[in-house]
Amino acid sequence: MRIARFRHAGEIKTGQIHHHGVRVFAGSPEIGSIIAGGIAEAHRREVAQTVPLEEVQLLAPLQPSSIRDFVAFEEHVEGVRRSVDGSAGVPDAWYDAPTFYFTNPHAIYGPGDDVPFPAASVARDFELEVAAIAGPDRSIFGYTIFNDWSARDLQSREMQVRLGPAKGKDFASSLGPWIVTADELEPYRDADGFLDLWCTAAVNGVEVGRDLLSNMGWTFEAMIAYAGRDSRVEPGDVLGSGTVGNGGCLAELWGRNGTQDPPPLTDGDVVTLTVEGIGSLTNRITSGAENTGIPRVRRRDPAQARAERQS
Amino acid sequence: MRIARFRHAGEIKTGQIHHHGVRVFAGSPEIGSIIAGGIAEAHRREVAQTVPLEEVQLLAPLQPSSIRDFVAFEEHVEGVRRSVDGSAGVPDAWYDAPTFYFTNPHAIYGPGDDVPFPAASVARDFELEVAAIAGPDRSIFGYTIFNDWSARDLQSREMQVRLGPAKGKDFASSLGPWIVTADELEPYRDADGFLDLWCTAAVNGVEVGRDLLSNMGWTFEAMIAYAGRDSRVEPGDVLGSGTVGNGGCLAELWGRNGTQDPPPLTDGDVVTLTVEGIGSLTNRITSGAENTGIPRVRRRDPAQARAERQS
Repeated sequence: MRIARFRHAGEIKTGQIHHHGVRVFAGSPEIGSIIAGGIAEAHRREVAQTVPLEEVQLLAPLQPSSIRDFVAFEEHVEGVRRSVDGSAGVPDAWYDAPTFYFTNPHAIYGPGDDVPFPAASVARDFELEVAAIAGPDRSIFGYTIFNDWSARDLQSREMQVRLGPAKGKDFASSLGPWIVTADELEPYRDADGFLDLWCTAAVNGVEVGRDLLSNMGWTFEAMIAYAGRDSRVEPGDVLGSGTVGNGGCLAELWGRNGTQDPPPLTDGDVVTLTVEGIGSLTNRITSGAENTGIPRVRRRDPAQARAERQS
Repeated sequence: MRIARFRHAGEIKTGQIHHHGVRVFAGSPEIGSIIAGGIAEAHRREVAQTVPLEEVQLLAPLQPSSIRDFVAFEEHVEGVRRSVDGSAGVPDAWYDAPTFYFTNPHAIYGPGDDVPFPAASVARDFELEVAAIAGPDRSIFGYTIFNDWSARDLQSREMQVRLGPAKGKDFASSLGPWIVTADELEPYRDADGFLDLWCTAAVNGVEVGRDLLSNMGWTFEAMIAYAGRDSRVEPGDVLGSGTVGNGGCLAELWGRNGTQDPPPLTDGDVVTLTVEGIGSLTNRITSGAENTGIPRVRRRDPAQARAERQS
């Protein structure tokens, strides 16, 4: 089933997408409690009314309790390292395990939202991913489309500190258009358990990327098991697949082409990500407010400061 | 004021530490709503009863809505890079801005808790930090002590993928013993706005680290402003200072000494972090369950897979 979060008649509601209608859940349950209840319980939800899809405004399907973003596509790693890291090849450690980083769970945008980039960024990019949404007991509740917007200029610089991306990514993540429960995508599984779904990315209506989700190196089940190892995965946690290959982001193409071709995104550009079996997620790029400067680092001799305070 | 979260008479409650007693807040407010209300409102909380401190079991003072961990101490960066990254010196980009990464908000331990490390890790370490807790409108509600436990062997390997630490850090973060509201630490501010607090770390009662919090390169106010730039900081977000210098973790000392001296933590070791004006946070090290293997990466020619699915 397809579970959406939306605004209707001035209120935020949840419901099931059914053909061109929305079956609004009775009792206005929060999406978080639907996810925590698991798939079987979601199928048993009572419906209060059915409204036409065009009468609702779809919202980001959830406010994640955390976001882990993986890098499960070798082709993406190989391409993007040349343009963002200034190095070539895939590190040996990539093959060890499905590695990930945590990103900001608070800057979430939904279908149709304008997405503000840092005003100073001139290397603006999208990333086409599928996100698994954790249900109870490390199960996978469902999937949605995830655009991991990236300011490559900010990211390249800050990653020299070796802590991964921060301000290059923390301004926006888009999720949507709804959550497709895991049972509905079972027919797409291949013999090794990978979801064989076409994923495409288009900028202003022109396709720039196309890959199979099954080109990822690990299944979502392996990724969620690895995330939970010695740790906790909670219902409502988002686990991004990592960016698909073959144009799943511009930086991969910049790395391969040796130049910024296609050009970085600019204000007014419209990015549409489409995943077979899920749907489409469209956003338009804007610029945020100009920022004031960062206070200069205070440098002093720490040993001397300690000696002075001691005395 | 010092705001604690604790178990008393079988229930989880919140209250104010006052000398050797705890003034239990009336109405059992959640710590999240106290933080969201801001400091002035916290001072006006009604007290239901006062109980002796020894009758309560202190818990981690909050469940963070996210954790950003900064690296604001140059001396730490310089030392730890030699042992974890295998490189020397501080990267130029470190001086640009107070850089951070997000870590797992779900694996939180409190005062006195046993902390399970990944069983396979043989390079176990602590990190002595002070955490600011965001209040409403990017204010700082208060401070607590933060131990950013680190499995250096796991961390070194996974950071070769250049996304920062993941499984090397996501198994545990300790917070406590309580939140000291920001107003209470105003007397410790120096002329540039830094908090001039002694921070010490002891393993099994022997001091191994001692630094001034004022040796950080940016104030917490600068860090929270940078975190919020083009993005969102929510009440209940935790912002770690980064590890203090001069032995704020073992890896810094390993880098300086060229050998694992003092030795890595092992099962049964007790780590106590003490910060002037806040208190002490003590935990004992244990080992988690042994893990099963990670499924091998599936490698295939992505272009060929696309061509076959197309046809």
